[in-house]
Amino acid sequence: MKIIDGGITAPRDFLAQGVCAQIKNHTKKDVGVVYSKFPCTAAGVFTTNKVKAACVDLSSVHISNGQAQAIVVNSGNANACTGIQGFADAHLMADCCGQLMGIQPRDVVVASTGVIGVSLPMDRVTRGINEACHSLSAQGSSALAEAIMTTDLVSKEIAVEITLQGMPVRIGGIAKGSGMIHPNMATMLAFITTDAAISADCLSQLMKDSADLSYNMISVDRDTSTNDMAVILANGQAGNRLIKHPGSEDYQLFKEALDFINITLAKKIARDGEGAQHLIEIRVINAAQEKTARIIGRSISSSNLIKAAVFGADANWGRILAAAGYSGAEFNSYSTDLYLGDEKVVEDGLGLPFDESRARQALEQDTVVITLDLKAGPFSATAWGCDLTYDYIKINADYRS
Amino acid sequence: MKIIDGGITAPRDFLAQGVCAQIKNHTKKDVGVVYSKFPCTAAGVFTTNKVKAACVDLSSVHISNGQAQAIVVNSGNANACTGIQGFADAHLMADCCGQLMGIQPRDVVVASTGVIGVSLPMDRVTRGINEACHSLSAQGSSALAEAIMTTDLVSKEIAVEITLQGMPVRIGGIAKGSGMIHPNMATMLAFITTDAAISADCLSQLMKDSADLSYNMISVDRDTSTNDMAVILANGQAGNRLIKHPGSEDYQLFKEALDFINITLAKKIARDGEGAQHLIEIRVINAAQEKTARIIGRSISSSNLIKAAVFGADANWGRILAAAGYSGAEFNSYSTDLYLGDEKVVEDGLGLPFDESRARQALEQDTVVITLDLKAGPFSATAWGCDLTYDYIKINADYRS
Repeated sequence: MKIIDGGITAPRDFLAQGVCAQIKNHTKKDVGVVYSKFPCTAAGVFTTNKVKAACVDLSSVHISNGQAQAIVVNSGNANACTGIQGFADAHLMADCCGQLMGIQPRDVVVASTGVIGVSLPMDRVTRGINEACHSLSAQGSSALAEAIMTTDLVSKEIAVEITLQGMPVRIGGIAKGSGMIHPNMATMLAFITTDAAISADCLSQLMKDSADLSYNMISVDRDTSTNDMAVILANGQAGNRLIKHPGSEDYQLFKEALDFINITLAKKIARDGEGAQHLIEIRVINAAQEKTARIIGRSISSSNLIKAAVFGADANWGRILAAAGYSGAEFNSYSTDLYLGDEKVVEDGLGLPFDESRARQALEQDTVVITLDLKAGPFSATAWGCDLTYDYIKINADYRS
Repeated sequence: MKIIDGGITAPRDFLAQGVCAQIKNHTKKDVGVVYSKFPCTAAGVFTTNKVKAACVDLSSVHISNGQAQAIVVNSGNANACTGIQGFADAHLMADCCGQLMGIQPRDVVVASTGVIGVSLPMDRVTRGINEACHSLSAQGSSALAEAIMTTDLVSKEIAVEITLQGMPVRIGGIAKGSGMIHPNMATMLAFITTDAAISADCLSQLMKDSADLSYNMISVDRDTSTNDMAVILANGQAGNRLIKHPGSEDYQLFKEALDFINITLAKKIARDGEGAQHLIEIRVINAAQEKTARIIGRSISSSNLIKAAVFGADANWGRILAAAGYSGAEFNSYSTDLYLGDEKVVEDGLGLPFDESRARQALEQDTVVITLDLKAGPFSATAWGCDLTYDYIKINADYRS
């Protein structure tokens, strides 16, 4: 597997574009489209929030037959809590994109992100879709990655190439997300493309499993969004033999590459958490069950107290054990070891004398690694979060203006 | 029911004291005792954190026979993650207090609060217990309330008097708590005394139910402590007829007063949340089930995004519906109304045009009231939290030093 340029347009026959439709201001790109020249196998995972944006309901129906050919997206407005008008607007986005590209509206996935409770300015949105569809480009990934940003400081793209039976197969992805990040079976927004030939069943299973290892293991603030969505389109243009058997060698190779793409994008989202100065990586190792490791990792990565301690580079490890303790997972704290970076600070649940300056150094890294060794079995999980800073509050005390 | 002075020493024959044992610094009171001249019926609720302080394990055993006569407590050190030594130290606190007061060590409840993972300086702790026991006073409630404070800015006391069959019965309480507040079947520390005559079964049931309405409905940061504990001692000196039948008139009158005490202390804890400038009161009304109302209330009161928006007086109501949506509770967002103060901002899940200045005014009150009307049934619940401010981060980026 090698990392390549091109993001979501790295796979063959995918085009993309992002434009400024002036939804939120006069300069930022805010409407975009990704389009495959050929029909795609498609799969997606969506927010589990009971309050869902219209686009989430619509897109989960559109993708339910395992097919799609385009994604249309806007930032600056979530089109959530917007009533009947919101549904009409989401439909209109799909209709508009479908007509312009000569495909069925139901083969268009619709996504929105931004402020909740304000109706979309549909005249500007449709003008933006029109402009994007007429300027689609095989180099358009970066423009689209920009167009889906809200409070993100950096755009998030990645692509890789693997070889299946001698044929190069590519997977590319873009994502956005900075605040209201605590995905539950989905993410903020992530769009993945691939030219692999793969069955809808395999694609759906792989995407679900991969989201569990990536987007579902990050947290910025424990707030699960109304608009989370991760969608993959596979157009089959790589010419590889159809991947249709879970467990086959090709399936495994594709899985590794897809997991890499999704984990890379998920880590980029956590590192770009609102106000964040550090990525925090929680490794829970030697658990009796995978579930235990996942639950404890998520609990630690979500704790305000731990996030504030990392911001202050304060080796306050008691908060880490406390967060493991209230996670709800079953484990024995009296056989648990804890490391900040490489510095062991707890053995068998008991604080060790440790080198404060080495611990502080570990907490000052761009990526802060915390390892909890449960010494109970063969399972592990990794979760990611970010520190809690003054800027998180600054950003969120006045998001709407 | 009337509110009276005296806190935890308002009920007859309870004495208390708080002294400075120099556990954390040279000036703050940090060790205290509350003692009843007569044996008490006792009940308590304790943290559900899997990582428990030694005192929590010990006290839950001591109280399991429904009897106790004294509580000994220190602040500045949680005596958690301190291994075998921690258990020995908790036992020694009970032994020391028991000997000085001439009662069995198992009739002493032990509580600690403060930094995790550091062994108690037992020479200073025992000197402090000795000093406190020798200076116990019927006016000692305030000194004890001070002695249990950590990052609290204000001490928390309340007492009431009710009349049962013509006899005045008193209930008093103190509490502490400011950070690591997201109680789960317990609280940070709350100690309640009463001179009521009441059976152990009734007392235990009432305390559990009351904790569910009070401490279990507050959140400062979603971090559940290792040391949470709420304990009540009832010494029977009021001379009322023994309360022993759930549902009797006396039971109901006592319940109302106890709920008032616990809710008052819980609100004081939330208002004194680390860095808080506002108490946030979430009223979830007209739910189909009580559980639904409780879960949604807790979810809203815990959201970082909502807490930051209140700090900024930003009427970003979409975050409130989103937090209801990800709470896990079943409800229909399309029949939900939302109010900020008296200003209706959402009707049937759809944003209304609203008066921004009136909404802002509601968010600038010392107590910010948010009401979610589910229009689905007869059940309600109230949850309390506080805003998320720069000072929360300042306090927690460097707690240990």
